[in-house]
Amino acid sequence: MQIILLSGGSGKRLWPLSNEARSKQFLPLLASPSGGKESMVQRVVRQLGEAGIDAELTVATNAAQRDIIINQLGDRVGIVAEPERRDTFPAIALSCTWLSLGKSCPADEVVVVMPCDPYTESGYFSTIARMADCVREGAAELVLMGIKPANPSTRYGYVVPEPAEAGCPWHRVSRFTEKPDAATAVRLLEEGAWWNGGVFAFRLGYLTDIVSRYVAAETFEELRGRYSELPKISFDYEVVEKAESVAVVAYEGKWKDLGTWNALCEELPEPVTGNGLLGPGARGTSIVNELSVPIFCEGIEDAIVAASPDGILVSAKKTSENIKSYVEHLVDRPMYEERRWGTYRVLDRTKGPDGVESLTKNLFLKAGCNISYQRHNFREEVWTFVSGCGSVRFEGGEKEVRAGDVVHIRRGELHGLKALTPLNLIEVQIGTRLVEEDIERLELTW
Amino acid sequence: MQIILLSGGSGKRLWPLSNEARSKQFLPLLASPSGGKESMVQRVVRQLGEAGIDAELTVATNAAQRDIIINQLGDRVGIVAEPERRDTFPAIALSCTWLSLGKSCPADEVVVVMPCDPYTESGYFSTIARMADCVREGAAELVLMGIKPANPSTRYGYVVPEPAEAGCPWHRVSRFTEKPDAATAVRLLEEGAWWNGGVFAFRLGYLTDIVSRYVAAETFEELRGRYSELPKISFDYEVVEKAESVAVVAYEGKWKDLGTWNALCEELPEPVTGNGLLGPGARGTSIVNELSVPIFCEGIEDAIVAASPDGILVSAKKTSENIKSYVEHLVDRPMYEERRWGTYRVLDRTKGPDGVESLTKNLFLKAGCNISYQRHNFREEVWTFVSGCGSVRFEGGEKEVRAGDVVHIRRGELHGLKALTPLNLIEVQIGTRLVEEDIERLELTW
Repeated sequence: MQIILLSGGSGKRLWPLSNEARSKQFLPLLASPSGGKESMVQRVVRQLGEAGIDAELTVATNAAQRDIIINQLGDRVGIVAEPERRDTFPAIALSCTWLSLGKSCPADEVVVVMPCDPYTESGYFSTIARMADCVREGAAELVLMGIKPANPSTRYGYVVPEPAEAGCPWHRVSRFTEKPDAATAVRLLEEGAWWNGGVFAFRLGYLTDIVSRYVAAETFEELRGRYSELPKISFDYEVVEKAESVAVVAYEGKWKDLGTWNALCEELPEPVTGNGLLGPGARGTSIVNELSVPIFCEGIEDAIVAASPDGILVSAKKTSENIKSYVEHLVDRPMYEERRWGTYRVLDRTKGPDGVESLTKNLFLKAGCNISYQRHNFREEVWTFVSGCGSVRFEGGEKEVRAGDVVHIRRGELHGLKALTPLNLIEVQIGTRLVEEDIERLELTW
Repeated sequence: MQIILLSGGSGKRLWPLSNEARSKQFLPLLASPSGGKESMVQRVVRQLGEAGIDAELTVATNAAQRDIIINQLGDRVGIVAEPERRDTFPAIALSCTWLSLGKSCPADEVVVVMPCDPYTESGYFSTIARMADCVREGAAELVLMGIKPANPSTRYGYVVPEPAEAGCPWHRVSRFTEKPDAATAVRLLEEGAWWNGGVFAFRLGYLTDIVSRYVAAETFEELRGRYSELPKISFDYEVVEKAESVAVVAYEGKWKDLGTWNALCEELPEPVTGNGLLGPGARGTSIVNELSVPIFCEGIEDAIVAASPDGILVSAKKTSENIKSYVEHLVDRPMYEERRWGTYRVLDRTKGPDGVESLTKNLFLKAGCNISYQRHNFREEVWTFVSGCGSVRFEGGEKEVRAGDVVHIRRGELHGLKALTPLNLIEVQIGTRLVEEDIERLELTW
């Protein structure tokens, strides 16, 4: 059995903690059973393991998320990154082609596609196991999960089931309804409709057949190279609504989308995360602070105060769903990123009257990891090492560095950095064009 | 005529913008007539000039405020810094001794002592002129200002005047009452009492006589050296309540203490100062942001959101008077300071597992200004120059620096820095003991 976790989104709704480089599913804010913190995607992968589902995991994502997925999930998962953002059908098609042509999975292997970040309980995962059984038993060519609605929401698609025989764990689908208006949603609940949970089970060959109608690729690389030929359409429109036989299996337990601060705060283990203090008149208010400066909040109830190097949000919890349109233009580059080699925070940006810009970062490298061997044509960099021990590589050779050492990298000079122990440094970039693209990477085994 | 402006306080009530190094009177938040911003003390000095009061100004303050006063008021004022913090009587005694022995003002010169930060209008300054006239005309040995109370506040001392003859611009004082309880305050208002505005006029010799009873100094330096012999007592207790003849002149116009966010926000020219955005559901809310990261506020009404390198405050305006006790322990060092040579912001502090600390600052030096020639015994510093042009002095000589240059100052190495043009640099300090006191300054004319 193969599970494809769909990981996308830029998550502006959880601004300022989520950004282009760190979508909501990667925020390490939930309590983990070990007493630490875990992200939504780490929670789902942990729950899949605890449910005893014997499946291999593949994350369908984009290139920007590759590093953070490796950081958070390690080598427990495969990663299939789409070459450009299209829609859910092409993304799932690419991952299925990888399973079929890259991983040589047989055409009759059961595949489950699911979101990577639902906040649920163990019954959700046993429902997934039942869906896989339905596919194996031939109940339908496509099996999907129906979520018992908590309210007549207009944010979800609905599935109307047909009555099932007693004891049968699945229902045929009578019809689908996309996001309805409020009145329709109430009628759908009266009819016994369920939310479409975005979880689908099918045999691998079922989907690769559909893909081959658009692109008959011989290898995974070929399909990836012709990715733009796949239609930009959702899996629901392209596959679910065209399927000849669809079954639905119901899940009636807890199911939440922690995609807004209001929803997320309900699941935070403590009212204050990070450096912060709530006064006695701040009942129901949550602080999530990723900055080092302290936050003090008093006299404001039922609010969220969230701070990161990207910005500071102060919002009533009940209005926090609507922040997306306002914050879209507040930040033009991510100020915090998780990379394969570690993390960095932007501390400061300046632009002098002579057009020279500076960008100051605090970088943490994990032991054994390295920043690629590279050069910049428009900037210099000054590294001041603060703790740990590392090795700097130049064209002329290598040099060991530790706390107190300073390395000045000139324009055009090849350089690389490897952490021998956990390594912390302050990097000051200075130049006339400080853009991420000013980088030439050399392939180099180190 | 001489005016002594009393400048003290650490201003925790306007945290996080005010700190040990920048009291509330120096916050550049008020609208100035030129269209820019000015601080409370700059406003008072401007208003004194506009009122046509022909007086020389001396600021009585402490050493920590000397640099910011020079920055904000330039050479228009004298500065007398007390060698240690005592109380208002010793501070005024020190300044009067400076006027008498340092500046050789005659004993019959009229002196007005006043706070440096009341938010008032032009009538306040014409009242000061009338008070000086009263002293000149011999109405009393001490003349003070009575403020018409806006409400029966328990935060101020009260002055109960005797009835005056028709046409007489001053009243004899019947009695003083220190900060009363609420019921007493109501009765005081019924009696026609005024707030004691903390403005006093007298002849210089009147005060130097009192001082000489404690310390009979021959020079200003001698009194300054024996400052600890002056009693730690307020001017009200030591002088006002013991005076044989006291007159009071009334001021009935606008008079506000902008010492809380609630009061200050009413006088801010715009609801957003700095990088911030208010949503449509944030009526009555003010943002004051000295950080570079953006603040977005929505769904919270009548609140103050204030951010600086020292911290972030989110408070209902009505509870903002009470923040002092909570924030006292949130910050252990000022993260923003104005100095004689310019300003700095602390960007980051880290402490490695090996005990090595780092402190990253962004410094702006004004053209022509210099950081003193100094050395550190427990830290190294790395300067990366971002814009402008300066001169670095070492034991071996001088070196010109500009954008892109890097200077690494070792432990124990003498160094100085002068700005030839406005100069911006990133400084990374690294060492085992990063404290302000780790500095040896050499006197050096440069």
